[in-house]
Amino acid sequence: MQTFSQLLSKLDLFLLNAQWPEEIPQLYEPLSYFMTLPAKRVRPVSLLLSYQLFHENIEPALPLAKAIEWFHNFTLIHDDIMDQAPLRRGLPTVHEKYGQNTAILSGDVLLIKVYELIVDSIPSELLSQVMTCFNRVAIDVCEGQQLDMNYENISEVSKLEYTNMIRLKTAVLLGASIKMGAILAAAPSKDAENLYDFGTELGLAFQIQDDYLDVFGNPNKVGKQAGGDIIQCKKGAPFIAARDMLSGQEREKFISEYLDTSQAPAAKVKVVLDRLHGMGVEDTVNKWKQEHQDKAMHSLKNISFSEQQKLPLMQFAEMLLARES
Amino acid sequence: MQTFSQLLSKLDLFLLNAQWPEEIPQLYEPLSYFMTLPAKRVRPVSLLLSYQLFHENIEPALPLAKAIEWFHNFTLIHDDIMDQAPLRRGLPTVHEKYGQNTAILSGDVLLIKVYELIVDSIPSELLSQVMTCFNRVAIDVCEGQQLDMNYENISEVSKLEYTNMIRLKTAVLLGASIKMGAILAAAPSKDAENLYDFGTELGLAFQIQDDYLDVFGNPNKVGKQAGGDIIQCKKGAPFIAARDMLSGQEREKFISEYLDTSQAPAAKVKVVLDRLHGMGVEDTVNKWKQEHQDKAMHSLKNISFSEQQKLPLMQFAEMLLARES
Repeated sequence: MQTFSQLLSKLDLFLLNAQWPEEIPQLYEPLSYFMTLPAKRVRPVSLLLSYQLFHENIEPALPLAKAIEWFHNFTLIHDDIMDQAPLRRGLPTVHEKYGQNTAILSGDVLLIKVYELIVDSIPSELLSQVMTCFNRVAIDVCEGQQLDMNYENISEVSKLEYTNMIRLKTAVLLGASIKMGAILAAAPSKDAENLYDFGTELGLAFQIQDDYLDVFGNPNKVGKQAGGDIIQCKKGAPFIAARDMLSGQEREKFISEYLDTSQAPAAKVKVVLDRLHGMGVEDTVNKWKQEHQDKAMHSLKNISFSEQQKLPLMQFAEMLLARES
Repeated sequence: MQTFSQLLSKLDLFLLNAQWPEEIPQLYEPLSYFMTLPAKRVRPVSLLLSYQLFHENIEPALPLAKAIEWFHNFTLIHDDIMDQAPLRRGLPTVHEKYGQNTAILSGDVLLIKVYELIVDSIPSELLSQVMTCFNRVAIDVCEGQQLDMNYENISEVSKLEYTNMIRLKTAVLLGASIKMGAILAAAPSKDAENLYDFGTELGLAFQIQDDYLDVFGNPNKVGKQAGGDIIQCKKGAPFIAARDMLSGQEREKFISEYLDTSQAPAAKVKVVLDRLHGMGVEDTVNKWKQEHQDKAMHSLKNISFSEQQKLPLMQFAEMLLARES
């Protein structure tokens, strides 16, 4: 059994070998640029981790892992346009560097190339099953992004609605990556479903932790502006949790304070943080994260392998959920 | 054998039955809107025409025809953003009506739904072959759009380069639609290739005619602004043909006149049109169109069916190339 880092090295080598067509560099150079930005490769490596439960040699799963990473990059390129984000991983986004039209079109061609990769690398008897899983998650991710945009203009998003949004936008892609590793390995469908649930719940815990770190994390370790979500009025897990701990006028006051854009950023962060600390929101958010972590572990337990065999997946989960940045 | 109009009626009924998910209307309503705009459905009907060469009952080909029409609409939604086009078929474009972010994301989900439709409707033994053909043409269309954008900033685009651009951007989708009808019918690969060439050459002739009509067509019949391409300095077939008939200073003068944006639109159209008429560019462009029409007919001739059986395809070609609007 190989660990996350061993699989990551193999994957990185494999990704480096990507040959983009040399004609029409205006279309392909942006992809080659974006794909070499530093990245954690969490999704494709999770696919390999799942595949190796069933087959020792992970080589046949590398192209599908690459397809997942490409798909993830496609969503980032288009999301960055929609969010008007100037930076991604500390470097200029595609639309910032090459213009918006190129970002739209390069993203489009990348999505098609994902399908090309799938068709070229998946044995034909598994193609329909892999594609059905992939199409479902790809649609989910678009729906999640739309919900995220919808929720920007609504203050009354319930915890359930929020969880559903991050499930679609972020979590299911981890679940589907892990599941596709199992499908490609021709695993029993019960294992594939448990792996999907494991990955999706892990993805939810991860996203809640991400929201937590943005608000409460040590800015030096997190590596971004302290309280960025507070300044941008992003209604992440800490906001949802705090709001639901309050009622009546207190609730209204908190919401309007959080959504207030008239204050100086640093002052606003201080006011909101003091309020959140005073209420003990950290504990509430941690419990929320823990619920999904527990569900993930429960699904992992149900998979028909020994603890020893499942160790790399367990370590992967621990690594993801122990991060401070 | 059914004619174009008979097949069109069946297809339109089939397309009307499309059910978009009711949740997240922000994502799906724009698609439902765009898909009901009046359209000629040339590509999907061509697929049905080709399929019925091999099978009388065209029902099994309707989902793939729908996928082709959806793909075409996906490209239009994204192209309209890139071209900043306010109108499509006389009505507001998606980005104009719903905003740019929605247009990007609805387009993305539509492309994924195309693949979903293909996977759900194509027998698994043909899936890989259909998808390989589809992925190739989808990439071609993106490359064609990129070349088109590149050429906006270059005056020295050769006739060969221009032909290659419209081949990728427009013509191959007609070729691939017709070919996919044959693949789905499990036709001999030689017939499938000849049908691809027939459709692609027909698509080239059609696009050259489209360029011709924009410049020389009767504005009342064409239904758009007279000389729109001249006003917008679009380097279509009449520009390429005229430029290549000239040399030295005459050539330079013509290019700078054509690319001049300082004149009043009506005055510029008159100057350029007088110049083009004087040179007899109509004949040159018509000959250019005719070359591709001849190639299309040659490929049609090579297909192993009787003239009678190929009549609907022949009538389809005549209908496409006889249009005045």
